[in-house]
Amino acid sequence: MAIKTGIVGAAGFAGIELVRLVLRHPDLELAVATSNELAGTRIDAEYPGFAGATDLAFATHDDPALDACELVFLAVPHTAALAMAPRLVAGGATVVDLSADFRLKDPAVYEQWYNTPHTATELLARAAFGLPELFPDDLARAARAHANGELALVACAGCYPTATSLAAAPAIRAGFAAPSGTVVVDAVSGVTGAGKKATARTHFCFADENLEAYGVGTHRHTPEIEQILGIAGQGRLVFTPHLAPLNRGLLSTANIPLAPDAPDDAAFYIDQYRAFYRESSFVHVLDAGSLPKTSSVAGTNNAHIGLAVNAPAHMLVAVCAIDNLGKGAAAQAVQCANIVCGLPERRGFDAVAVPV
Amino acid sequence: MAIKTGIVGAAGFAGIELVRLVLRHPDLELAVATSNELAGTRIDAEYPGFAGATDLAFATHDDPALDACELVFLAVPHTAALAMAPRLVAGGATVVDLSADFRLKDPAVYEQWYNTPHTATELLARAAFGLPELFPDDLARAARAHANGELALVACAGCYPTATSLAAAPAIRAGFAAPSGTVVVDAVSGVTGAGKKATARTHFCFADENLEAYGVGTHRHTPEIEQILGIAGQGRLVFTPHLAPLNRGLLSTANIPLAPDAPDDAAFYIDQYRAFYRESSFVHVLDAGSLPKTSSVAGTNNAHIGLAVNAPAHMLVAVCAIDNLGKGAAAQAVQCANIVCGLPERRGFDAVAVPV
Amino acid sequence: MAIKTGIVGAAGFAGIELVRLVLRHPDLELAVATSNELAGTRIDAEYPGFAGATDLAFATHDDPALDACELVFLAVPHTAALAMAPRLVAGGATVVDLSADFRLKDPAVYEQWYNTPHTATELLARAAFGLPELFPDDLARAARAHANGELALVACAGCYPTATSLAAAPAIRAGFAAPSGTVVVDAVSGVTGAGKKATARTHFCFADENLEAYGVGTHRHTPEIEQILGIAGQGRLVFTPHLAPLNRGLLSTANIPLAPDAPDDAAFYIDQYRAFYRESSFVHVLDAGSLPKTSSVAGTNNAHIGLAVNAPAHMLVAVCAIDNLGKGAAAQAVQCANIVCGLPERRGFDAVAVPV
Amino acid sequence: MAIKTGIVGAAGFAGIELVRLVLRHPDLELAVATSNELAGTRIDAEYPGFAGATDLAFATHDDPALDACELVFLAVPHTAALAMAPRLVAGGATVVDLSADFRLKDPAVYEQWYNTPHTATELLARAAFGLPELFPDDLARAARAHANGELALVACAGCYPTATSLAAAPAIRAGFAAPSGTVVVDAVSGVTGAGKKATARTHFCFADENLEAYGVGTHRHTPEIEQILGIAGQGRLVFTPHLAPLNRGLLSTANIPLAPDAPDDAAFYIDQYRAFYRESSFVHVLDAGSLPKTSSVAGTNNAHIGLAVNAPAHMLVAVCAIDNLGKGAAAQAVQCANIVCGLPERRGFDAVAVPV
Repeated sequence: MAIKTGIVGAAGFAGIELVRLVLRHPDLELAVATSNELAGTRIDAEYPGFAGATDLAFATHDDPALDACELVFLAVPHTAALAMAPRLVAGGATVVDLSADFRLKDPAVYEQWYNTPHTATELLARAAFGLPELFPDDLARAARAHANGELALVACAGCYPTATSLAAAPAIRAGFAAPSGTVVVDAVSGVTGAGKKATARTHFCFADENLEAYGVGTHRHTPEIEQILGIAGQGRLVFTPHLAPLNRGLLSTANIPLAPDAPDDAAFYIDQYRAFYRESSFVHVLDAGSLPKTSSVAGTNNAHIGLAVNAPAHMLVAVCAIDNLGKGAAAQAVQCANIVCGLPERRGFDAVAVPV
Repeated sequence: MAIKTGIVGAAGFAGIELVRLVLRHPDLELAVATSNELAGTRIDAEYPGFAGATDLAFATHDDPALDACELVFLAVPHTAALAMAPRLVAGGATVVDLSADFRLKDPAVYEQWYNTPHTATELLARAAFGLPELFPDDLARAARAHANGELALVACAGCYPTATSLAAAPAIRAGFAAPSGTVVVDAVSGVTGAGKKATARTHFCFADENLEAYGVGTHRHTPEIEQILGIAGQGRLVFTPHLAPLNRGLLSTANIPLAPDAPDDAAFYIDQYRAFYRESSFVHVLDAGSLPKTSSVAGTNNAHIGLAVNAPAHMLVAVCAIDNLGKGAAAQAVQCANIVCGLPERRGFDAVAVPV
Repeated sequence: MAIKTGIVGAAGFAGIELVRLVLRHPDLELAVATSNELAGTRIDAEYPGFAGATDLAFATHDDPALDACELVFLAVPHTAALAMAPRLVAGGATVVDLSADFRLKDPAVYEQWYNTPHTATELLARAAFGLPELFPDDLARAARAHANGELALVACAGCYPTATSLAAAPAIRAGFAAPSGTVVVDAVSGVTGAGKKATARTHFCFADENLEAYGVGTHRHTPEIEQILGIAGQGRLVFTPHLAPLNRGLLSTANIPLAPDAPDDAAFYIDQYRAFYRESSFVHVLDAGSLPKTSSVAGTNNAHIGLAVNAPAHMLVAVCAIDNLGKGAAAQAVQCANIVCGLPERRGFDAVAVPV
Repeated sequence: MAIKTGIVGAAGFAGIELVRLVLRHPDLELAVATSNELAGTRIDAEYPGFAGATDLAFATHDDPALDACELVFLAVPHTAALAMAPRLVAGGATVVDLSADFRLKDPAVYEQWYNTPHTATELLARAAFGLPELFPDDLARAARAHANGELALVACAGCYPTATSLAAAPAIRAGFAAPSGTVVVDAVSGVTGAGKKATARTHFCFADENLEAYGVGTHRHTPEIEQILGIAGQGRLVFTPHLAPLNRGLLSTANIPLAPDAPDDAAFYIDQYRAFYRESSFVHVLDAGSLPKTSSVAGTNNAHIGLAVNAPAHMLVAVCAIDNLGKGAAAQAVQCANIVCGLPERRGFDAVAVPV
């Protein structure tokens, strides 16, 4: 029997992608999709591609139908999840949160980067981190909780942290990185990453035919990447996000100084990464000499990783391509929900991006 | 049991989209995908989005595996289908042809527009025209032939003819068009419509930030549109294709002079069109005041139609949006194959485009 | 000595293009550039490309510096020019208005299409129409007025009317068009045509990879085109604008039914058009078989015209490419200002678009 | 009197931009523009934006008109300049070379990276390096040679080296960089950087909506950047170029480890950089908190630099935006020519990019 599912914040870009993925999922039933701003508007009026696929209209965030859902996705800005998650989990729902509210384990770090106190620290302590390839135990624990009718909350990883960590974590965890080396990450995102709000930044005429960096040293995904990579508080991450003129796609280039005794051979790392990801059907480590393209993963939950070594500088260059709304947001959330609900992690996913 | 399926010309844009659609189709099994140019190359080497989804490599067009297929898609240039289809159907395969070789019923018209004689006129006479919403009887006949083990060949409609005819045919068939009026069609296509070959036209730097018309009065889809609309040889069609900087999408704006007694009320035509397409789950006629967007149908087999009337000029303006590689090519071919093979026409399709 | 020049509404897309053109103009001196919304903000803070080129900040619309200007461009929404132009011309300035307020000669037509009464009908009667290639006498009259210190106001043509009329007027004026035939115009614009305001329509993620028609039968440029072509009130124009994913560029395809005795030979019309435009250095009529590209004219005041004949339908297809912010707005305004101020019409212009 | 100027390789993207810049330059006269592939074709037939601006056709590379030129730009692939430059300078021409043939001071490094011996080492030793803001003395020396009728050859810097070095050199030269630290440079280029040849890489449908890295550790601009920054052979540069879907624009993000005693204050470096570039009218160092956009410099010779410090990592992040065909190729070549010919370096340039 299908799992009654709610999506809060369904009119934003991650939210509407969740609507698409839940509608096509054989084991999930979209019971309610909320948007305070568009409450009462049919989904297919706002996003006409849904014509014929659903007759639902957006509900408000406090719609009682949410309380009847077994599974709730929160695709809301930070602080909004803080406000909603405690009530929902208390009501028995399993919550998969796409906001930043339950990602940072240390409430003080949250408060530092988001300028607001964390008001649900108990729940925070129990949240599973939603990046299944790197934290399978977290999700297994949440799955057991869900199965036992206990509190289950998943805090999905952000888009930059997902791509960056998939690229960097296997090398760092295996000890190939220089212990005190600084990891330099330059990442580029498509404009869906800037959100649905119409602003100067998201105006076609300013984003088109333009490249820019933003948030140098101040982007809130910085502490999240540090936490995932286990280098929090060490001043060893320099992360610079960039914006490029495309809709979907995120490419993260992680430059990882190698430990003195680590080899300078790309093939070695490719083997290591393939072993690391051997159970992960969504992650593909490319052959030597190949580098990932975001177009290869658009619309999917896939991540493609390419590896090269700069021998003179003894540096591993690891590049990961994802869809920022896919593996970077909505699709990863569905992957997490699959795992927590005891379904195969690929349930509801196609294998392949639109090829051109 | 899955239907063994072959795709000839699988490395082109329509061909690779067929590969994607066949791979995800629950009742089709991709047995062989050919490309003379790339024979021996793995599909996922040429199109890395297929990594993990298939281990197939491209075969040559004369690969014997083709002869064992029950269903063969031909995604080849014109004349190549002329050369291959007779042998394939003689061997018992049901052939769905995406080329222009079997679309024009009159061999003389084919010869005039394609500058080459038609060498399979007997087969031409038996071909079903592959535009299911407008020629359901053709496809029903092909389905009976397929069921009876008889010769079955579908000549899928071209991209511009599909969008234009879906927009114009209901009005013309119902007699709302002025009997001798000239239908003016201006249509705009994304660059995938220009094919995979790297040329000055398809170079990013020439296509980007550019709009142009091409083939004014000479585009080979002209006689096909005339044939579908039943106005062949009457000098009543002016068709101008245009190119715009996007990958997928085709928007056709058909200006149809109305008969003297036809009403000037858009709502009337919307009702008529909805009745016409009431059995057609892929076609959506939008509410009054709404006009279709190609982004709503990208990656799908859907067609969205918007209707407006210019009362002072007594003209119906009918606009249709499709994906030129979807409803305009590969997806429509799969829809045709579904029908001919006795499957539900939606089998293997999702309902919804990626929303942004 | 340089002409003191003011630009009202300088922060919008046409306005800032005017700033660029006036700054590089050897005979104009930018004295003041206004934007009520951004008053006090440096121009190069809002548009960083101007760094090093000007130290000006935006002033308010009522800045007294405007009254000291000999030449004022109004790049404001309709009704705002109605409010400002009378005072400015009374104060002795020559005004070049880019709004729609003084384009339509008949105040009743203005009221019908803009839903507001025309409050400066006397000034309207004296306005010159700013489309120099088609209305040279109007501008010559304004130039005499300017030279004599009399009231001079130019109402620049809109973007769609400019491209469409350059394409259609020579044939219609020469009597080649069928006297009662309906001219069908389908035109496509880049997103700068939708203005600087951040909206769902101008959001990158909705405009990118999308084609759509809009304002079918209701676009306010319709009566302007009819007026220019001399077919007002005849129900002989069907005009449909479309939006495509590029910044600058407007392509208008005009389908003109030919008179019974008009020839069916494109070369004939090319000769006629070249004769018509022989004094017009900004207009280029392409060779037979060539069609214009908007990229060829981006950033310039040029217009490229291609001509073809559909003989079976006895229809002239005339296609014109302009930059909607160039010949369709700011550059044409500067061309008009040059003429009115007694300067060569090319003063301040380069010949050539950026080639790629 | 205008300087007779030739452009060799004028049909490529840098070449045609040179044609545009030379045509608008008040002191240069375009005598001959060559393209072996397109010899005999009018420039405006290949690039229709030049209609009305020039009647020239492309000549062959051995056209005798070249020998009569006082100034010759070489916009040819590497090795072609090796073949042509010696003859041209021997004939008395001043040569500005945009190829890589005379950039690397050490012939052994050239041979290592370009897999071909350097056959004009004597000329190499006398070449001035064409990056005026960083090597003014080189260009002053070439200017004296030109004035004295002696041999003058300028080897213009490549696109990535220009942007990267403008961003990194002031800090490194002033000793703010950690002496043995590794500089990590991630740079993103528009597709014009991949050249005019139609390939899979430059196909619209593969470049559009895609981000990718390429040439990791192997890009030939690596030794050039090392040479400019004075860190050749030290294994201290990790340079990764990326491709993004736009025509023009190059953004280089240079991550520079700071020396122990260097401050962590962005404002400090902004002051230092402004002092460094105080004579350089093309380079703008942005205010603290601002980061450069490539759209601000498209079509110009400008470079915009933004600076930030990551204090915990003690890293300077310096970002530079240029137009890869402007400051990264053709415009910088004209700037060099201006200096060598004794003209003001801004002669022939506008100040401002097209604003949207």
